[in-house]
Amino acid sequence: MGTVGKALELLDYFSRARPQIGLSDFARLSGLNKATCHRLLTELQEFGFVEQAGLAREYRLGPAMLRLAALREAHVPMQEAAQPVLRRLALATGETAHLSVIVGEKLALIGFAYAAAHGTKVTMEDTEILPFHATSSGLALMAFAAPALCERVLAQRLEAYTPQTETDPARLRAKLDQTRAIGMAECTSAFEADVHSFAVPLFDATNNCTGALAVAAPDARVTTALAALIRTELGRAGADITALWGGSLPPELVTRWQNR
Amino acid sequence: MGTVGKALELLDYFSRARPQIGLSDFARLSGLNKATCHRLLTELQEFGFVEQAGLAREYRLGPAMLRLAALREAHVPMQEAAQPVLRRLALATGETAHLSVIVGEKLALIGFAYAAAHGTKVTMEDTEILPFHATSSGLALMAFAAPALCERVLAQRLEAYTPQTETDPARLRAKLDQTRAIGMAECTSAFEADVHSFAVPLFDATNNCTGALAVAAPDARVTTALAALIRTELGRAGADITALWGGSLPPELVTRWQNR
Repeated sequence: MGTVGKALELLDYFSRARPQIGLSDFARLSGLNKATCHRLLTELQEFGFVEQAGLAREYRLGPAMLRLAALREAHVPMQEAAQPVLRRLALATGETAHLSVIVGEKLALIGFAYAAAHGTKVTMEDTEILPFHATSSGLALMAFAAPALCERVLAQRLEAYTPQTETDPARLRAKLDQTRAIGMAECTSAFEADVHSFAVPLFDATNNCTGALAVAAPDARVTTALAALIRTELGRAGADITALWGGSLPPELVTRWQNR
Repeated sequence: MGTVGKALELLDYFSRARPQIGLSDFARLSGLNKATCHRLLTELQEFGFVEQAGLAREYRLGPAMLRLAALREAHVPMQEAAQPVLRRLALATGETAHLSVIVGEKLALIGFAYAAAHGTKVTMEDTEILPFHATSSGLALMAFAAPALCERVLAQRLEAYTPQTETDPARLRAKLDQTRAIGMAECTSAFEADVHSFAVPLFDATNNCTGALAVAAPDARVTTALAALIRTELGRAGADITALWGGSLPPELVTRWQNR
């Protein structure tokens, strides 16, 4: 990896659970020595990508992202455009709806909406990165994005998040064939125990599959009737977001969603 | 500048007016050769900071910023926290309110609100970077942020955006003394002709002056009465945003705003 990659990788260590990171921790997390980390962080700081805060002078993400995110959304409105659809989908199904997009090599959550219908729900506040092989969103993308994505994911060590996580590449390939056949992915307890999720692929203005829309419910609540409702609403909402992104659905997908 | 800085600088060439940039244009804008540009862009692309779009495979900002901006706002909510105050300020004054923060070496606009009171208004859609020496926001920051900022700005070549732009360092220093004395900056036609603006400094949770809040009006509308109203409302809104950011105002500033 080049110097730029090493610097950008440091930004990936920030998360909601770890919003501030000291120099020693950066060195430990990245495996780089402190002097190298310090040099990279100083360059990131110069451009407002990180800043130092508090008495311990720990690093946190800086304000540069606000401007760049606003510029990106002004040119390619993906997050804001999808938000009303997410809210409608959560309301229609009574369950949590969420949206994720491919960011580099990762699947990043960029929006979600809750339904007020139940006292228990699948919560998303602390989720930022979804594993491809263990979520319905990830499977939808592996099934419909360029084949290189699928191959890259399957070549990695696949973590078992629960006893139900599928980590066998051959069985995952079979699951992806099934996902392609019905145009929708489904997972139970693969990333978090007792969560049942459904996801459809989303296509952007260049007609690449770059995102996924999912509905996640406590497994105990997923009756045949609720599953049918979720599949119908998910197909509709997925088509809406793809249209808002200026993309179009592959024709066979439209047929599969309608014929289910 | 290091390799990381060169890569991050490429991101700064994107703007609302220039949302997609081809490789040759990057080379021209940056003064780097095409091979170097391509190598830097490839590293940025790997992390989702840029992506290629369209038949010409031009580069545009990628989705990585959405995740990082959301993380930054979750930890240090500056933009969302300020938005209701911006709306109230625009409504109370009948003029355009805007918010900017220091991003690296630049002053970046991160929020604005319009008033519906008049058919003509100062518009902000196409503004992203404000020059420090030619805007009331910039002067407020030069007056109240760490002195190094002021010295860096005054050491640069100061562009004249209009015939009224003050570019003489000595006269700018006098204007900054005045800004400090009254706790508020004021500019007329310094960046854009016929725009009259007022700005106060904002302080973050570390009590550093990192942002500015401004009201901008067509100069012809700025009567003594409107100017007095704007100064009162601006002081109040500036104190509100500083409080929302977890900062506190220097006591002498509170006194100056109250005694005006």
